[in-house]
Amino acid sequence: KEGSRRYRRTVFDFNEWRKHRSTERYVRHMQSMTSSRMVRGLAAPLAYIFAVATAVSVYNASVEAGLLPSLLPEVKMASNGPFGSVSFAISLLLVFRTNASYARWLDARKAWGKLINRSRDLTRQALTYFPPEDKPLLDLLCRWTVAFSRTLKCHLCEDYPLAEELARVLRPHEAEALLLAKHRPTYCLQILSETLKSAHLPPPLPVAQPHNGATAGHAAAAQAVAAVPAAAAYRMDENLTEFEDIVGTCERILRAPIPLSYTRHTSRFMIIWLTLLPFALWDSVGWATVPLAVIVAFLLLGIEEIGVSIEEPFSILPLDALCDTIEANVKELQRTHSQQGGGGGEE
Amino acid sequence: KEGSRRYRRTVFDFNEWRKHRSTERYVRHMQSMTSSRMVRGLAAPLAYIFAVATAVSVYNASVEAGLLPSLLPEVKMASNGPFGSVSFAISLLLVFRTNASYARWLDARKAWGKLINRSRDLTRQALTYFPPEDKPLLDLLCRWTVAFSRTLKCHLCEDYPLAEELARVLRPHEAEALLLAKHRPTYCLQILSETLKSAHLPPPLPVAQPHNGATAGHAAAAQAVAAVPAAAAYRMDENLTEFEDIVGTCERILRAPIPLSYTRHTSRFMIIWLTLLPFALWDSVGWATVPLAVIVAFLLLGIEEIGVSIEEPFSILPLDALCDTIEANVKELQRTHSQQGGGGGEE
Amino acid sequence: KEGSRRYRRTVFDFNEWRKHRSTERYVRHMQSMTSSRMVRGLAAPLAYIFAVATAVSVYNASVEAGLLPSLLPEVKMASNGPFGSVSFAISLLLVFRTNASYARWLDARKAWGKLINRSRDLTRQALTYFPPEDKPLLDLLCRWTVAFSRTLKCHLCEDYPLAEELARVLRPHEAEALLLAKHRPTYCLQILSETLKSAHLPPPLPVAQPHNGATAGHAAAAQAVAAVPAAAAYRMDENLTEFEDIVGTCERILRAPIPLSYTRHTSRFMIIWLTLLPFALWDSVGWATVPLAVIVAFLLLGIEEIGVSIEEPFSILPLDALCDTIEANVKELQRTHSQQGGGGGEE
Amino acid sequence: KEGSRRYRRTVFDFNEWRKHRSTERYVRHMQSMTSSRMVRGLAAPLAYIFAVATAVSVYNASVEAGLLPSLLPEVKMASNGPFGSVSFAISLLLVFRTNASYARWLDARKAWGKLINRSRDLTRQALTYFPPEDKPLLDLLCRWTVAFSRTLKCHLCEDYPLAEELARVLRPHEAEALLLAKHRPTYCLQILSETLKSAHLPPPLPVAQPHNGATAGHAAAAQAVAAVPAAAAYRMDENLTEFEDIVGTCERILRAPIPLSYTRHTSRFMIIWLTLLPFALWDSVGWATVPLAVIVAFLLLGIEEIGVSIEEPFSILPLDALCDTIEANVKELQRTHSQQGGGGGEE
Amino acid sequence: KEGSRRYRRTVFDFNEWRKHRSTERYVRHMQSMTSSRMVRGLAAPLAYIFAVATAVSVYNASVEAGLLPSLLPEVKMASNGPFGSVSFAISLLLVFRTNASYARWLDARKAWGKLINRSRDLTRQALTYFPPEDKPLLDLLCRWTVAFSRTLKCHLCEDYPLAEELARVLRPHEAEALLLAKHRPTYCLQILSETLKSAHLPPPLPVAQPHNGATAGHAAAAQAVAAVPAAAAYRMDENLTEFEDIVGTCERILRAPIPLSYTRHTSRFMIIWLTLLPFALWDSVGWATVPLAVIVAFLLLGIEEIGVSIEEPFSILPLDALCDTIEANVKELQRTHSQQGGGGGEE
Repeated sequence: KEGSRRYRRTVFDFNEWRKHRSTERYVRHMQSMTSSRMVRGLAAPLAYIFAVATAVSVYNASVEAGLLPSLLPEVKMASNGPFGSVSFAISLLLVFRTNASYARWLDARKAWGKLINRSRDLTRQALTYFPPEDKPLLDLLCRWTVAFSRTLKCHLCEDYPLAEELARVLRPHEAEALLLAKHRPTYCLQILSETLKSAHLPPPLPVAQPHNGATAGHAAAAQAVAAVPAAAAYRMDENLTEFEDIVGTCERILRAPIPLSYTRHTSRFMIIWLTLLPFALWDSVGWATVPLAVIVAFLLLGIEEIGVSIEEPFSILPLDALCDTIEANVKELQRTHSQQGGGGGEE
Repeated sequence: KEGSRRYRRTVFDFNEWRKHRSTERYVRHMQSMTSSRMVRGLAAPLAYIFAVATAVSVYNASVEAGLLPSLLPEVKMASNGPFGSVSFAISLLLVFRTNASYARWLDARKAWGKLINRSRDLTRQALTYFPPEDKPLLDLLCRWTVAFSRTLKCHLCEDYPLAEELARVLRPHEAEALLLAKHRPTYCLQILSETLKSAHLPPPLPVAQPHNGATAGHAAAAQAVAAVPAAAAYRMDENLTEFEDIVGTCERILRAPIPLSYTRHTSRFMIIWLTLLPFALWDSVGWATVPLAVIVAFLLLGIEEIGVSIEEPFSILPLDALCDTIEANVKELQRTHSQQGGGGGEE
Repeated sequence: KEGSRRYRRTVFDFNEWRKHRSTERYVRHMQSMTSSRMVRGLAAPLAYIFAVATAVSVYNASVEAGLLPSLLPEVKMASNGPFGSVSFAISLLLVFRTNASYARWLDARKAWGKLINRSRDLTRQALTYFPPEDKPLLDLLCRWTVAFSRTLKCHLCEDYPLAEELARVLRPHEAEALLLAKHRPTYCLQILSETLKSAHLPPPLPVAQPHNGATAGHAAAAQAVAAVPAAAAYRMDENLTEFEDIVGTCERILRAPIPLSYTRHTSRFMIIWLTLLPFALWDSVGWATVPLAVIVAFLLLGIEEIGVSIEEPFSILPLDALCDTIEANVKELQRTHSQQGGGGGEE
Repeated sequence: KEGSRRYRRTVFDFNEWRKHRSTERYVRHMQSMTSSRMVRGLAAPLAYIFAVATAVSVYNASVEAGLLPSLLPEVKMASNGPFGSVSFAISLLLVFRTNASYARWLDARKAWGKLINRSRDLTRQALTYFPPEDKPLLDLLCRWTVAFSRTLKCHLCEDYPLAEELARVLRPHEAEALLLAKHRPTYCLQILSETLKSAHLPPPLPVAQPHNGATAGHAAAAQAVAAVPAAAAYRMDENLTEFEDIVGTCERILRAPIPLSYTRHTSRFMIIWLTLLPFALWDSVGWATVPLAVIVAFLLLGIEEIGVSIEEPFSILPLDALCDTIEANVKELQRTHSQQGGGGGEE
Repeated sequence: KEGSRRYRRTVFDFNEWRKHRSTERYVRHMQSMTSSRMVRGLAAPLAYIFAVATAVSVYNASVEAGLLPSLLPEVKMASNGPFGSVSFAISLLLVFRTNASYARWLDARKAWGKLINRSRDLTRQALTYFPPEDKPLLDLLCRWTVAFSRTLKCHLCEDYPLAEELARVLRPHEAEALLLAKHRPTYCLQILSETLKSAHLPPPLPVAQPHNGATAGHAAAAQAVAAVPAAAAYRMDENLTEFEDIVGTCERILRAPIPLSYTRHTSRFMIIWLTLLPFALWDSVGWATVPLAVIVAFLLLGIEEIGVSIEEPFSILPLDALCDTIEANVKELQRTHSQQGGGGGEE
């Protein structure tokens, strides 16, 4: 079941949407039911409900048929008795579970979406505002932007080998230094931050001897030419802050589950309710109790199961595809930029 | 069914709101029912439910009439049995589907609304802050702002021919370059970014010879006149970041559907529930089972069908009309501006 | 019904809240029921339900009384049959309609609230940061801020005559130019933007002859005195962007209704459900079917009717009162400012 | 009932949370029921329901006992008839009322929370960035920050005497001027804005004679010393904009109730439903109809009553305590600052 | 019960997620039920319900068995009578309680998540932008960033000894000064703010003698070298404002509970409903009334209990672990930075 999570990392395109919308989906979904990983994951609790329902039915049928000592009563109840009274509460807990889990999944997906946007944005800004002589710094920044997303991916999901990922992106000594860090995403951001600052600061020389009027002009000129304009540096720093927030959001989702008391109470509620269900069903449907109890259990446990399975979204999000998108975008931007001859000067 | 999606790209005006609100809407909606694309889209599953309901009714009627061997029992159940117990869960899944799909539709619509706002805003700023001698850059910026929205439209929806769209907006060599790019919206933003920077930077000349006090003044003066003031460039760069976020939001909606396990579980739940429905209806309504089962199926499947059909919102949003709005706004702003004689100098 | 919408533009004060909270509201609301515009708006569908319920009751009573040929059966069903099964789905659609419509109403109200805040804020900033010699520009800005809100009002709601509104606010030639524009709110913002820039830029003179050291000082001094400080201009430009977003939000609400398929499906669902209701009621309440069916129809259709009537919020929001608030605030701020002798210099 | 609203302005501390969480709360809440202001507020409608239930019970009992002419039928209906059909709709309206009212309450509380944060923030910034010679301006700013919160409190709630409040905070002539203003919170912000600007601008002298090179240096130096750095002024201006938004949010909540049609429809729906309730109860519970109808009415009307009572949140929020917090924080910050010897110079 | 809250401060890692998702959770949750702190916390109300159910059952059984004087009637009612009518309202109140409490918990968790992000961000910026000669200020800033989180923790939760916590982080005289402050988190922010400013301002010397042209250049140069660039200071000040907002958000959650009338009404509603439950159950399930009433009470009271227990989230959030994360991150960043030789100069 754990292993199957990697097959759920869906990325849609136009074609898949058309299939998704077509009316044939009903047929497709019914057919795939037996092979569904979720169904197989629920095998154990469904077997339990099957056993309970069979036991209740056999017992009650025996009593009715007079096969058991007459002291033993039939054990059944009207289906609208306590059942109607608490089914709304199950509904409440399932709604809560569904909404809270989906919100976590969506938050995680949005954080990664933002990571893509802002990686593109940072690259765009760097390509535009870094002066031509800062080309090595520019490459450094692009490299580490890509490395940052891959590092974050490995920080959030065990399935990926960080060292391999980095080997394709960073220089060996860079990758090594990064692997030594304890909190790696923050390390990447620190490097990006230093890079920004290096590009920004005017060469320190004129500052060392600011003792004649001319140098003022010199300094101003140097500032205007060699440095990323202050406003641009500011804006790029904003994107780094955005990166910090993305790291934090993802870590929050990974570290803090929905309060466990809800998860436990929902499990207990469902098991108790489903255990009592056959007693309520026998009265109105007789031997159909067994299949019906199992079907109802499947439908309800299925909702909870999905909720639990997307509560930790990183192992089912296509983080790999998202990282590849970032890498492809950054590289294409770099390529376009160098074809244009290094910036807006020639525009 | 796919083809019909383009007829759902509604844009309302005062008149349509009046019609929308009038009490006659009930008559209108009932009349349009038979020609409704949604109804026809549901024909297959409704036929299935019709068949099941008919089979159940015929079988049970035969048993009651003694036409079948007496061993065969009537197959029916009380309608408030397992049914009441799980109908809340269907409700839950449909509510979730409806809300999540509508939120996606609304997100997409808001992103495009923001695209309009910020296209206007960027144009406003450029018209205000670009110096008169940067008129070519200004035209370039306006042109690419319009091109950006059209490129994004084609990026999100297959129905539009990008080359044709661009031909009306960009110069031939620009359109060609754009069509060669792999991620076209990002390419547009890169061009806009370079344009901003070109307008912003002071002419590089005075910088080359900053060796006497006078030039300091010269440089400062040049900066004050020829360049977009730093703060304005900053604010326009903010709008480009906003554009990046819009691209990202739209791509997220296009690439990441609602977790498929929910979609599948909802389909399965509905089909199982509707298949069992005739058994529960026969007991209380007899032959009315057939029409009632079909009506109920229509009402419930309809809700799911609408949810699925707006899950991917770009093929039903009036992206064309929105792009036209942007183009009209940008062009009107440019016209007004040149009538006023090129900016606030004459104000 | 359309005409009555203008009587629903409520603005509350302390007194009305006290009345709103008092327990007498029950009496008041029941008494006003017969004169309620909503009730009268629903007359047609209620008449239809009345007719259906009467027909069903008369038919069934006739059958029971043996007045009809004995071949004709009673047409009725248990009220908890298919009814219970789908009433949750009606509930779902009504909840969705209610929440989505209210969210639109609230969004529109918040956008206008923000318009008030930011009009005040822009005025505050202009009064603080415009230098005394820019008094004409200051008046221009205040005038157009007021005009902007009135223009937006007329852009969103047909009921107001723009020309008259503007005559009280703008100079004749300004109003004329504005009326000629196609997208008027954007035109206002363009004027505000040019005004800001005019106030901001240093007088162009010293720039023309920047060839001696003294002028550098001159330019710097001029910059410090005559111009709105760069940061202030930046902050005021942010408010203009906020205005653009407000225009865009309002236009989105006006142009894009809730996906029509939901509206249609809800109408159809309600009419079908209410048509079947009398059949279900007859069994348990007999002749009380007629009044009860009409009451139930009133209660449910009422919820949908309110939802539809606030879906387009601008014709029921007190836009007039909000514009008056803006005008009064701007004028009071101007008055206070000139009494204090034109800014913080004397503080 | 109105008077009692001031006793609901709760501020919690650790102790009260412990009490709040303890299991004894059930006992406490049941005991306080008879003295509950809400219960007494509902006396009138509960009496009405009591009367209806008694009348229905007496009439039906009389018919059953044969005390009335035999022409008169029993008036009753099955409790799951039309009742089940519309109880979900009541639920819907109550959920909507509850959520919308709570959202308003929370918005108001958050706006005031933000007022606290930003008052602290503005004070922090002023203490840090105002130069030592601007001490009088600093005091002015702190004074008016406190006055602003008190003015807003009186703007939103009638219960407080503004003149008295201000006497403790402002100098007499300041309080007088503020009391004369029509929109007082905006007046406060205008004063704060002027204060900021006064602190920010360099002394006007060097500007008057900018005709020799030396003064350029002088001006620059003056700018660096006497003025709040531009970025700091910018950041403080952001807090003023935040204040404008807080004023606007609070005014929106005060001026715009939830659309009245919902409030009216909910009242009517509840009264009609509760009036019909005894007819449905008699069949299943006989004379217990009277207490049960009253209990049900209490439970449902209670939910609506609470919703209505928090719809206008300012008269139940502890605005007084919040203003005191702001005053205490501002004063403590000032005290700490002067003990440290006036800023970071000595740090 | 109070003491047990500290055992609920969960932090998840990959392993725990795997356990969390595995199907064995049903078994685990059922087994831990008897030792569950929540179950034991509910002992008192469950005992009450047990008593009521037993009394009702004994009484009714006695009446049926003819053991009591025949005047006394059986006391029972149909379970779908008033019960169905109000169970939706309980559901409504529980949903509201659950959502509102969870939103508070999530807000608190997000605020602390943001505290982590922004502590990292502030440290990153300081390490990048502080000039090498400001090393002592840098250490000061890092120290107080850590101290700020620990101070806030103790401000929000009684369980931690502030003095001890600070001893490990601050110098003795700093800790002492902080402990003397009344509102300690604000005090920390004031220190951070002063530190920022000290690093930012150019050395005051050149300003003291600005009387020759050369000094203008000098001042400009000094500004460019010794000071944190203005934009960086601005961005760091933004993080301080974010800190102020975090303090304010946490305080709001701590001081303002969900309106107490809801909490009270929910308690009363539940107790009344559960007290009436045995009367409704007896009719359909006989002696099974006693266990069923207790089970239903457990399931429903459990939902409310969880809601109440997370309403004040700070005593169940792992604030300690979060503070440790901040400290570890800040220290690692400092270590990395000094290994690299003090900033980007050597990059």
